[in-house]
Amino acid sequence: MRREIRERPLRVPGFRFAGVTCGIKPSGRRDLALIHSEVPATVAGVFTQNRVRAIAVDLAARHVRRGHGQAVLINSGNANACTGAAGERVARAACRQTAIALGIPVSAVVPCSTGKIGVPLPAVPMVRGIAKAVRALGDDRLWHAARAMMTTDAFPKVASRRLRIDGRMVTIAGLAKGAGMIAPDLATLIVCLLTDATVPTPALRGFLADAVAESFNAITVDGDTSTNDTVLALANGYAGNAPLARTSADGRRFGAALAAVTRELADYVVADGEGATKRVRIAVRGARSGRAARQVARSIAGSLLVKTALYGGDPNWGRIVCAAGYAGVPLRLERMTVRIGNVPVLRRGAPVPGDAERRAARLMRQSAFTVGIDLGSGGTGAAAMTTSDLTPAYVRFNSAYST
Amino acid sequence: MRREIRERPLRVPGFRFAGVTCGIKPSGRRDLALIHSEVPATVAGVFTQNRVRAIAVDLAARHVRRGHGQAVLINSGNANACTGAAGERVARAACRQTAIALGIPVSAVVPCSTGKIGVPLPAVPMVRGIAKAVRALGDDRLWHAARAMMTTDAFPKVASRRLRIDGRMVTIAGLAKGAGMIAPDLATLIVCLLTDATVPTPALRGFLADAVAESFNAITVDGDTSTNDTVLALANGYAGNAPLARTSADGRRFGAALAAVTRELADYVVADGEGATKRVRIAVRGARSGRAARQVARSIAGSLLVKTALYGGDPNWGRIVCAAGYAGVPLRLERMTVRIGNVPVLRRGAPVPGDAERRAARLMRQSAFTVGIDLGSGGTGAAAMTTSDLTPAYVRFNSAYST
Repeated sequence: MRREIRERPLRVPGFRFAGVTCGIKPSGRRDLALIHSEVPATVAGVFTQNRVRAIAVDLAARHVRRGHGQAVLINSGNANACTGAAGERVARAACRQTAIALGIPVSAVVPCSTGKIGVPLPAVPMVRGIAKAVRALGDDRLWHAARAMMTTDAFPKVASRRLRIDGRMVTIAGLAKGAGMIAPDLATLIVCLLTDATVPTPALRGFLADAVAESFNAITVDGDTSTNDTVLALANGYAGNAPLARTSADGRRFGAALAAVTRELADYVVADGEGATKRVRIAVRGARSGRAARQVARSIAGSLLVKTALYGGDPNWGRIVCAAGYAGVPLRLERMTVRIGNVPVLRRGAPVPGDAERRAARLMRQSAFTVGIDLGSGGTGAAAMTTSDLTPAYVRFNSAYST
Repeated sequence: MRREIRERPLRVPGFRFAGVTCGIKPSGRRDLALIHSEVPATVAGVFTQNRVRAIAVDLAARHVRRGHGQAVLINSGNANACTGAAGERVARAACRQTAIALGIPVSAVVPCSTGKIGVPLPAVPMVRGIAKAVRALGDDRLWHAARAMMTTDAFPKVASRRLRIDGRMVTIAGLAKGAGMIAPDLATLIVCLLTDATVPTPALRGFLADAVAESFNAITVDGDTSTNDTVLALANGYAGNAPLARTSADGRRFGAALAAVTRELADYVVADGEGATKRVRIAVRGARSGRAARQVARSIAGSLLVKTALYGGDPNWGRIVCAAGYAGVPLRLERMTVRIGNVPVLRRGAPVPGDAERRAARLMRQSAFTVGIDLGSGGTGAAAMTTSDLTPAYVRFNSAYST
């Protein structure tokens, strides 16, 4: 499923980018990304719920809380997690150096780290790398930054939308890294969303929360929540539109475009899931509530037996209803319907006779399809999760290295 | 890790056993087990929490609730789950026929089914098989019954203890089937515990609940809860001891022996986990409560990244603390210590320098070892889970067949 995205030139007015080699990755690939807004931007962020989180996440959360920022500094190859005081010193120094070089306050720098955990971020490469990145900044180097965020990603992940708001052309661009939470690269998901729209901080927080709920919070590769997950949004107002309100018509259009960008990036992350050969949408409906639907979707999307059946191309509704059964939601088998694509294989608890399973199995050879579950509870609760298949390659990839 | 248990002759006074071929399994192997107590026994049971459960589980739970029983009928090769009214008719008829043949009430027959789901249990093989099993009953055929319970198990699972109670020699024997919840054999775990001790129903329920909590509820292969899990205990009083009370000295000794049998059976189930090469005990201590310790142990034992690291023999404490971090329990990295066997690899949040990782990696080549996590929270909460490694063979096994 590893596919490249065509690297179309992409600019976001008022933003400059760099992606350089500072020497953290032994491979010599780009490992330091810097994103700079020429003017202060409003900032919002969503961070990992893991109780063990990297120092960069603590610092980033603290800086983002102020609601304004002007730079994002991302190093890959080292998550700087579980590294104690030594790691914290380097992270703070990196923010300080970036701030001085760009002539902005320290609190306007949002740091992110991704890569191996348990090894303090080395100071010397960071010092040299930051100087190099500041020199390299250019408005045409977004893809350099996207490449410098990668760890085990097979391809850089970029998505964008343009739309007219208040008579101005507005750009929303997103850069992401992530391919399952893998070690030594424990830190999965780092996402930067950049726009030249004018969006007050409270509205930006609302747009981001909505977009994340239906994208990055609705995907699973291996169910492991990393120590470093970070999603940021920066809006620098270069477009000059009137400040966006969440509930206005323009606000809704902006929110929909932002959500489209995050959904596209989330799909890339699942498609790049380690060893994955298929991307499968688990769509649940007919639940008593949205929450119940989400629980069932999450249980099915996370089941190893479902994920191996997806890999094997087996329309195994038994594993699907079984995983639904332990989601902790009241449900009745005799009301449940399961579809693979548009082919029902179980209808109100009874296997569909004829060639349904054969047709479903053929459909499952595709690299992307939907499994639909109607709980038939009489309610209208619906939710979807996107998952990948579990393959021998995933296991080999995650076991075949030595520390 | 697939190992055979030596088939020592084993009798439990007052119980007779049969394991016959009735024709449900296409392989022609034994697929119908019958256990009969010559006198009414007290009965206790623990059943799957899955909301989708097989008809046999419903019937068994109803019969067990009365507190007395005299026979257990187990078919393998067909879980009779998700089979609607047709499946229910056959299950009820099987109980009725067994009751008539043995001259006992229908409610004294506890039915269990394990195997493929979604296919109604065929009536004709069951009718013939029950007649054959009743004729075959013998007090020396416990291993036949253990074999007839197997689905994807590599070996039959039997454990026993003998102890003196109230001046009488008492036997506790356990028969189990289970090797991860696999399909088409969705129904994992069926366990029958048999004793000739005299144990009133309420005490038997208590002993069983305690024994299950630290054995079958403390193991994981793939985290999937099946539609058919059933654990039964029958006590027929043949030994003639005074009725056991839970809190008496004899009661505690009996409870400990029963728990030893269930722990041994649970270890066999993990050892037989599909594709597993290692059995690993995740022992958590220093938590604020037993519940918190259990949550952390469960999170680590269920993490795909931990399980692939166990397979790879990688002392990856980063994945371990990360899985602990998303268990939903407050914890602080700088207080956590992680040991592989007796080798600390992380001490109060800091990686242990020197050759600790190398020594831990060597230790992880063994087929069974312990990973110890001290949360250092100041509390004394402790819990352990036993897990298996996740291997390419597991994935191949669960994906490589067609329905």
